[in-house]
Amino acid sequence: MATITVFGAGSWGSALSIVLADNNHQVRLWGRDERQIQEINEERTNEKYLPGTTIPSNVKAYTNVNDALNGVEAILLVVPTKAMRGVLAEIRASLTTKVTFIHASKGIEPDSLKRISEMIEEEIPEHLRKSVVVLSGPSHAEEVSLRQPTTVTSSSLHNEEAEYVQDLFMNKHFRVYTNPDLLGVELGGALKNIIALGAGLTNGLGYGDNAKAALMTRGLAEIARLGVKLGANPLTFAGLSGLGDLIVTCTSVHSRNWRAGNLLGQGNSLDEVLANMGMAVEGVRTTKAAYQLALREGVEMPITAVLYDVLFNNKQPQIAVEELMGRVKTHEVENLSF
Amino acid sequence: MATITVFGAGSWGSALSIVLADNNHQVRLWGRDERQIQEINEERTNEKYLPGTTIPSNVKAYTNVNDALNGVEAILLVVPTKAMRGVLAEIRASLTTKVTFIHASKGIEPDSLKRISEMIEEEIPEHLRKSVVVLSGPSHAEEVSLRQPTTVTSSSLHNEEAEYVQDLFMNKHFRVYTNPDLLGVELGGALKNIIALGAGLTNGLGYGDNAKAALMTRGLAEIARLGVKLGANPLTFAGLSGLGDLIVTCTSVHSRNWRAGNLLGQGNSLDEVLANMGMAVEGVRTTKAAYQLALREGVEMPITAVLYDVLFNNKQPQIAVEELMGRVKTHEVENLSF
Repeated sequence: MATITVFGAGSWGSALSIVLADNNHQVRLWGRDERQIQEINEERTNEKYLPGTTIPSNVKAYTNVNDALNGVEAILLVVPTKAMRGVLAEIRASLTTKVTFIHASKGIEPDSLKRISEMIEEEIPEHLRKSVVVLSGPSHAEEVSLRQPTTVTSSSLHNEEAEYVQDLFMNKHFRVYTNPDLLGVELGGALKNIIALGAGLTNGLGYGDNAKAALMTRGLAEIARLGVKLGANPLTFAGLSGLGDLIVTCTSVHSRNWRAGNLLGQGNSLDEVLANMGMAVEGVRTTKAAYQLALREGVEMPITAVLYDVLFNNKQPQIAVEELMGRVKTHEVENLSF
Repeated sequence: MATITVFGAGSWGSALSIVLADNNHQVRLWGRDERQIQEINEERTNEKYLPGTTIPSNVKAYTNVNDALNGVEAILLVVPTKAMRGVLAEIRASLTTKVTFIHASKGIEPDSLKRISEMIEEEIPEHLRKSVVVLSGPSHAEEVSLRQPTTVTSSSLHNEEAEYVQDLFMNKHFRVYTNPDLLGVELGGALKNIIALGAGLTNGLGYGDNAKAALMTRGLAEIARLGVKLGANPLTFAGLSGLGDLIVTCTSVHSRNWRAGNLLGQGNSLDEVLANMGMAVEGVRTTKAAYQLALREGVEMPITAVLYDVLFNNKQPQIAVEELMGRVKTHEVENLSF
């Protein structure tokens, strides 16, 4: 059994800690909030993020990074993209052995346009880092904590490391598939949040399932177009970490990005929406990063571009969606090719 | 403005009649039920199939095939696959001029394993038939009748005929894209009903969104695998008539196939489910046809095979879904390739 430190005690970090604990690993769950960490250790609950769930006794929670890293063999990062470099700097300052870095965060850094695996490689020197592995797929934290059947993808440039992570997490309820396309897996997980914002937006405006399905179809096509331009395998976007995660994020009220889009569509400003959510909404920053990436790469991403204008240039959501629906291209396969 | 006869006064036939009427065409809507046809002509409603909707005055309803075909330039077929050859025989007996055949039905005939365009070509001689065009995509009839934004695909082996149909239907709310891959468009529309049955089944068994997303992802992969083996363009399955229609059918309680699967998952027998629905459930017959096609072509379709056993061999739904979730393949991209 392994000792694994999970950085980030939100919904997803806590749910993945439960999976690891069910597999009899020693889990060290790190978070900044003293009260929350005390609640996990003493009450065995994390009511704000996983209401009604019991945290197993082999999950110990910490606020001190040194204590959390004692005897660790793998680190799982589940913090918002915005907080990633800060947490990595703290890990670098405390870590003394070479470990595997796994991440289950979904975003792209604006301006630098780095994926999370690239941020890890920049912040953690090679003598402290075995390999970087991403874990991604259609997985609401609430359902994982209830041991509902879930499937995800484990991806790394080094297949034996992807399989090591597969072995750590795999159990009867939580199935892990490997995929060597790290780039595609990371992009799919991050970029689908843009489309979820758009799907929520159409709902907030009063549009129905037909419009949502069209948006998701065209959205996946533009994600894949960017990914293939950057060197990803197009099939990855048809898999669990692409299509699968898109479906779960766009069709469930569990999704924060969908809920944020829905509130925008109902006429709230971005500031109002972010204040209302009280948790990170990765899709907002990812829309900015993807907009910049599409410009740099010369890739057409009409849904991303329109959402960028809604989020950052005060474009009216109603006008934005009408523009998307009324686009003049009429040959579907040309439009889908990438 | 054209005169178009719509065969089939169910939900989808009625909704498409409204689209054509909105575009100022003369619409002749044919059905067998005298009372329903009288209701449409006198009350301007079709309460059983489109409750609360007003049928425009330029839709005239008929039970007599000769009257319905008077002066027609295009025929739109929206009858269940099971009834298709019978209706085509009646049309053949009455039709005197060469017209375009459009269909918006979604199925494959068991045993013969023919698509609907092939059934039309077999039943209607060439001197009465210009071309066959299929109209397919993510489109709940209820939303179309409310003029909610909807996008569909028009496909024919003859592009000018696909564009003719695009022109007939296209308006501000109803966007029509063309795609020359008739085979792929027909297969996507028909086969997605199998996956919708499966998605309903998981729901009826109490599984959540994570399991549904996994099923849909793997389901689209096996549909595409069969389609590509038969000669379809893989991109078609990523488009509106593939992925788009799959999303709408699997994630909405509007869908009959989803509802039928849900009832099966709750422990009802197939006979009870079909009696309960009171409308055609295309996915049941399509599962049989697809199972036969997969055997003939030597294509692996694990979801279809398991559903076939649930529908026709009394396999327990719970065991069926556990088998699907526990499959031993662990390399995602190999599993997705087609």
